[in-house]
Amino acid sequence: MEGRKKKFIKELMEKPRLRRESGLYVVDGPKMCGELPAELVEELYVSEELIGSHHLAEKLKTLMAQKGFETVSAKEMKQISDTVTPQGIIAVVRQRRPRGLSGLLKEASAEGEAGLILGLECVQDPGNVGTALRSAEAAGACAVICDRGCADIYSPKVVRSTMGAIFRLPVLQTEELITAASALREKGFRVYAAHLKGSRDHDLCDLKGPSLILIGNESRGLSEELCNEATDRIRIPMSGRTESLNAAVAASVILFEAARQRRSKEQNL
Amino acid sequence: MEGRKKKFIKELMEKPRLRRESGLYVVDGPKMCGELPAELVEELYVSEELIGSHHLAEKLKTLMAQKGFETVSAKEMKQISDTVTPQGIIAVVRQRRPRGLSGLLKEASAEGEAGLILGLECVQDPGNVGTALRSAEAAGACAVICDRGCADIYSPKVVRSTMGAIFRLPVLQTEELITAASALREKGFRVYAAHLKGSRDHDLCDLKGPSLILIGNESRGLSEELCNEATDRIRIPMSGRTESLNAAVAASVILFEAARQRRSKEQNL
Repeated sequence: MEGRKKKFIKELMEKPRLRRESGLYVVDGPKMCGELPAELVEELYVSEELIGSHHLAEKLKTLMAQKGFETVSAKEMKQISDTVTPQGIIAVVRQRRPRGLSGLLKEASAEGEAGLILGLECVQDPGNVGTALRSAEAAGACAVICDRGCADIYSPKVVRSTMGAIFRLPVLQTEELITAASALREKGFRVYAAHLKGSRDHDLCDLKGPSLILIGNESRGLSEELCNEATDRIRIPMSGRTESLNAAVAASVILFEAARQRRSKEQNL
Repeated sequence: MEGRKKKFIKELMEKPRLRRESGLYVVDGPKMCGELPAELVEELYVSEELIGSHHLAEKLKTLMAQKGFETVSAKEMKQISDTVTPQGIIAVVRQRRPRGLSGLLKEASAEGEAGLILGLECVQDPGNVGTALRSAEAAGACAVICDRGCADIYSPKVVRSTMGAIFRLPVLQTEELITAASALREKGFRVYAAHLKGSRDHDLCDLKGPSLILIGNESRGLSEELCNEATDRIRIPMSGRTESLNAAVAASVILFEAARQRRSKEQNL
């Protein structure tokens, strides 16, 4: 493996700016690589050990046959992986990057139907951002918008926590979350800002129509500016003396309440 | 500060066995120490810098006056804290440790009313265990039971992720989660096992009565043995191609559905 390539991969894992400029990122390990859509894979590196293994999954064999790959030694794999025990496969992947809000909505095909979109503002913990993306897909959201204050969605930790949702769900990273919220509101979305002092309980709100759910920073919550774009400030009713919920949990609880309401509607319950 | 004490505190943070044998653990930082009930605090170490600070919260001043404290230098604080930037206060705290299931129920005073209890089996990520505890308190659960395969609830990472819930919520760590589940069932609890192949949707179950919610390991889910003690295997309906949810998220979504049903019942909705 060329030294130049090794260096590029390591830097791609460590430097958000290089990821942004190149439009590429790194996916590590057989589990995550097995979820990759072939059309997004640019380069594939597989260790000698994994190639000879009986445990190589069919999905990976197909991907390797389709895209081609470079064989690397265990030592080289260790040099480029950011995990303590590298699992023998690393991919360089193209970011999907929807073009602005209109590009996102096109990908999400959410304009016609009752879209459910999650918006994250300054959610800084990579695990929280990744977990929120994973939940968003599972709850049936059609897209996610992250402002630039959030952990970079293409950082190795976020990618891992999404468990593959990042390959499937359209996600827009933008400086303009406020503009996006305002534009969605004009398109008929209700914009729900999760707020500790929200005036309405989240589960007494109608989340069946087109909805944007806004979740803020782990300590500070949402900015006033963004809240001002909301149609409703909502709160998750809480017992005990807990002041707040984990940001990914708050997102998930509201998204799955939306999913529940949408299923009840279908079933006419 | 004595070398012996420094060593004890560092070991208390690192060694689950020492925590178990001593019945003590360490709480780090002004935010978490401010949540401590004074009766559980054994020792308090405060940096010179924090003592002289204008930002010292009233709650901490009260605690320091009530319990007494030892002043330590910034250098000593750095030696005993496990965080990169120590925040000037560390407490050695007594574990609450309910005595078995009957002790837990007594503390939880859940026998008479419609108790809501969370049971965790082999949840290994400390952040997940802590976040689940935080959500459990917020959703109105009266107690949590963790088996010994879970991350130790008194490890620094779990303590931090609970955001203080660990000081208030009765939590039992036990080798006998299966026995506890069976005993609760005999007491009239419904025992809901969260399972990817569950036969009932979580939000179509009656979670208003006494309920034990069981959540399993991040990759393997719940063991068959524990599932066999359940009255119902439930699933959270999911869209997209996500195979599962984060363990703390799954716990939270079910707990907050229980909270929602319980509020609707009160309001006769």
